[in-house]
Amino acid sequence: MLGLVQMSCDADPSRNSAKALRGVARAAGLGAQIVCLPELFRTRYFCQEQNADHFDLAEPIPGPTTQALSAAARQHSVVIVGSVFERRAAGLYHNTAVMLDADGTILGVYRKMHVPDDPLYYEKFYFAPGDSGFRVFKTRFGRVAALVCWDQWFPEAARLAALGGAEILLFPTAIGWHPGEKEECGQRQLEAWRIAQRAHAISNGVFVAAVNRTGLELPLAGSPSRPADYEGLEFWGRSFVADPLGGLVANAGGAEDVLIAECDLAEIERTRRDWPFLRDRRVDAYDSLAKRSIE
Amino acid sequence: MLGLVQMSCDADPSRNSAKALRGVARAAGLGAQIVCLPELFRTRYFCQEQNADHFDLAEPIPGPTTQALSAAARQHSVVIVGSVFERRAAGLYHNTAVMLDADGTILGVYRKMHVPDDPLYYEKFYFAPGDSGFRVFKTRFGRVAALVCWDQWFPEAARLAALGGAEILLFPTAIGWHPGEKEECGQRQLEAWRIAQRAHAISNGVFVAAVNRTGLELPLAGSPSRPADYEGLEFWGRSFVADPLGGLVANAGGAEDVLIAECDLAEIERTRRDWPFLRDRRVDAYDSLAKRSIE
Repeated sequence: MLGLVQMSCDADPSRNSAKALRGVARAAGLGAQIVCLPELFRTRYFCQEQNADHFDLAEPIPGPTTQALSAAARQHSVVIVGSVFERRAAGLYHNTAVMLDADGTILGVYRKMHVPDDPLYYEKFYFAPGDSGFRVFKTRFGRVAALVCWDQWFPEAARLAALGGAEILLFPTAIGWHPGEKEECGQRQLEAWRIAQRAHAISNGVFVAAVNRTGLELPLAGSPSRPADYEGLEFWGRSFVADPLGGLVANAGGAEDVLIAECDLAEIERTRRDWPFLRDRRVDAYDSLAKRSIE
Repeated sequence: MLGLVQMSCDADPSRNSAKALRGVARAAGLGAQIVCLPELFRTRYFCQEQNADHFDLAEPIPGPTTQALSAAARQHSVVIVGSVFERRAAGLYHNTAVMLDADGTILGVYRKMHVPDDPLYYEKFYFAPGDSGFRVFKTRFGRVAALVCWDQWFPEAARLAALGGAEILLFPTAIGWHPGEKEECGQRQLEAWRIAQRAHAISNGVFVAAVNRTGLELPLAGSPSRPADYEGLEFWGRSFVADPLGGLVANAGGAEDVLIAECDLAEIERTRRDWPFLRDRRVDAYDSLAKRSIE
């Protein structure tokens, strides 16, 4: 049983952390064995602006957030996938997913490999590209890969996690609409986001879940890099779970929610026997996937 | 303007070829500049059984089918993507897409790289795995990759074609329901098929079209390998065109149809500027995609 904590985040990290821990408790109470939190749930989505002061929000691993998550994992006997703005060294920060086993052990970290950089998503300013590779963690309740947000658009990430044995791909996420674009493009963007990830489930025969934050986040007071027409970002929620055929087995709306989904891992074997894509991959012909372009 | 000829195929190759050529003419009359035919349109889907007599249906390239398609391309000034059961040498056959430019020139062939082998889709018996790689053809009306049916489940194929410069991925297809499974699984299978391919459009920022055959094909009389409960295959049609955001811009039903879709290739540049996935691929971390499994 998988639990996704979809939540809004405000300017107070301690309040956000407390809300996340309540979400974990609630998910566990509803039967979840693996609980996933949204990307960078402890803070507002500070990447809306480039401001070096925000590096103060980072913390080491282990550190306060992982300690709190570890205690919660142990208390509720659940696996937790958390997300941390990681200070790895002075001047070296990552957008990191941390995997806690159901006894509270830190199994390891995944450092976001694909880092975006687009208007109001200035992540390349904050996060060094991950060097962890696409890791798979053997947890008490299944083999889980945590990938992070922008990774969800890259079939390579999902494939490598699946080849490494992942049964469930979890995507802590912070994605939203630019308010000025929402009416024209919002539905198409949301649908593309769902389709890209449901396709990972299908082509790999795995469960896939995305856990998004929700709510409008307006500019921070006094942002030095705030553009005049800056309307903030409206995080769209819509967390979901897809089964190995890509079917939506759970689906949140735009409000805060704790989403619970049964994931019968035996479906993976059944699905892959019917649709044996892993058998037929042309591994002799894929070398150029490691190229930027094929001229 | 793209044209897709969705058609049923019967036991008479000359009738099927004539129908395909009428479809090309009709698509051209409706304004199509690139016309794609379904997989192996000249024959019934003979791979429903393993029968060495069916190798008699194969032909060389160039050969009668490519000559007829070449003449049609020249006559209507359209690019044609055809599909041929290719006899490359004695005992060496391929499931081959052929690309004809709008002056009738054979630009080259793509030999199906991912070959399925599942109940009633016994393709590994008939077709050697392609050795053409994932080719992109510069046609009069755009850079086009022809991939074939089972390839549609492999994000690697779409990615390699896109990295090679393809603007449009065309999938001649023969996919259908097992009648006994249709009620329980049919809708999910169709939806997964659409999602997997719409995701190729999204993750690569290209147009994607699938051109399927349609109609129930019952067993051939006297099939030596016919199982007792053999009900044939119901090809589901539902050819479609997806734009670079994965939106469905044209969508056929289950009957014969000539589907026409405007494909503004400038959308590719616009979409990729907003969603610059090709910029952020981690080519330093993809080597293991050329492995069968990562232990």
